[in-house]
Amino acid sequence: MGRIICCGLGPGDPDLMSVRADRIVRAAKHVAHFRKKGQPGQARRIVEGLLAADVSEYPMEYPVTTEIAFDNPEYARLLADFYDAWAERLARLAREIDVVVLCEGDPYFYGSFMHLYARLQGRVEIEVIAGIPGMVGCWNAVGQPIALADDVTSVLMGTLPEAELAQRMRSSDALVVMKTGRNLPKIRRALASAGRLDDAWLVERGTMPDQRVIKLADIAEADCPYFAIVLVHGQGRRREAAP
Amino acid sequence: MGRIICCGLGPGDPDLMSVRADRIVRAAKHVAHFRKKGQPGQARRIVEGLLAADVSEYPMEYPVTTEIAFDNPEYARLLADFYDAWAERLARLAREIDVVVLCEGDPYFYGSFMHLYARLQGRVEIEVIAGIPGMVGCWNAVGQPIALADDVTSVLMGTLPEAELAQRMRSSDALVVMKTGRNLPKIRRALASAGRLDDAWLVERGTMPDQRVIKLADIAEADCPYFAIVLVHGQGRRREAAP
Repeated sequence: MGRIICCGLGPGDPDLMSVRADRIVRAAKHVAHFRKKGQPGQARRIVEGLLAADVSEYPMEYPVTTEIAFDNPEYARLLADFYDAWAERLARLAREIDVVVLCEGDPYFYGSFMHLYARLQGRVEIEVIAGIPGMVGCWNAVGQPIALADDVTSVLMGTLPEAELAQRMRSSDALVVMKTGRNLPKIRRALASAGRLDDAWLVERGTMPDQRVIKLADIAEADCPYFAIVLVHGQGRRREAAP
Repeated sequence: MGRIICCGLGPGDPDLMSVRADRIVRAAKHVAHFRKKGQPGQARRIVEGLLAADVSEYPMEYPVTTEIAFDNPEYARLLADFYDAWAERLARLAREIDVVVLCEGDPYFYGSFMHLYARLQGRVEIEVIAGIPGMVGCWNAVGQPIALADDVTSVLMGTLPEAELAQRMRSSDALVVMKTGRNLPKIRRALASAGRLDDAWLVERGTMPDQRVIKLADIAEADCPYFAIVLVHGQGRRREAAP
């Protein structure tokens, strides 16, 4: 009997993978990873140069990403079929071999693997290895404390309605906004409405060699960068706080 | 000229340190770390067995933790003097040697080192190494996705007023509550008022050999565990979401 090892790879710099993840990736005989059509895949890119020469690879290619609106029922059906099919295939493979599923960031934190994880429960042994979430790599790239003392930190998806985004941006100290991309104009308007646009940073590909760190207000309106996170730093409610 | 290397060590399991942190800790000649009086210190505990035999250690012992109420002006003055003195000492040391400051979790995320970081700006070269935050280790210990799809995640400190805690617990999907300890009875009341106590987990020393994972409602009222985080999992607004 084999098992599924879902390996969190951290934010992008392979030197920020955990000691355990590094060991498992280098020893892996079979690796699976998600990717968008026509792209190498973020997780696969992180482990470039670390995999054994004779490794077997199983790219799990999304049937759809942004071609169909996500509120279209067809979208949900296509994704569900995709996860069903890969859960079935991984469960079969793991009857005989260990399969390492490569996942950027931390798998339990908004990770795509969780759609497989839910389907694989009770069918196969699964180990999940924690990783540094992408947002942590992004705030390290800025080089300031994201939150201090009694700050409230909110992690928001750019897919939320603009009014809800603005309200939450107003009422939180530190802010992390994920799923930016085409939502970036909406995120900018919500930040401006909350009075926080001038304090917002955009970090693209944090910790990777081609990372970009820029004030959100300074980027062109038409610029919708890939794999970017928006950050607003907390100022530390009650400074010099208790350890 | 030496420098200060603030090394994030992750949640507790040394196998979850980053490859870079592991390398730097093993090669360190001088290490500093915070600790409470009479305790070895959480960060120092993580690297037990990894340090070189001839390493020089600089324990930075808090002058006060919970003996004085944190809203007492004397408390703030004692802490400020402590951080001033250690910033001065580390800056002097780093004129000639590299000093590795050991920090649990991720240094930029509510890390005590940030009080030194602010004071050392412009005086000495500083490198900060990202780590897996303690909360990530805790939700990995539970073994369920903490947040999915469009969930909003809120990170709250148990030191906040009860009414504010309850309001934020009601309006967020996934919840992380840090700084528990003596605030735990207040946190329980706030969760109950928000209708979320039955879904809350308490994780003590997540990823460490003696970790404890328990439903918060199941622990005794008088039990105020050390180094614990409270979690409530998001249910995934809009499941099968876009990758």
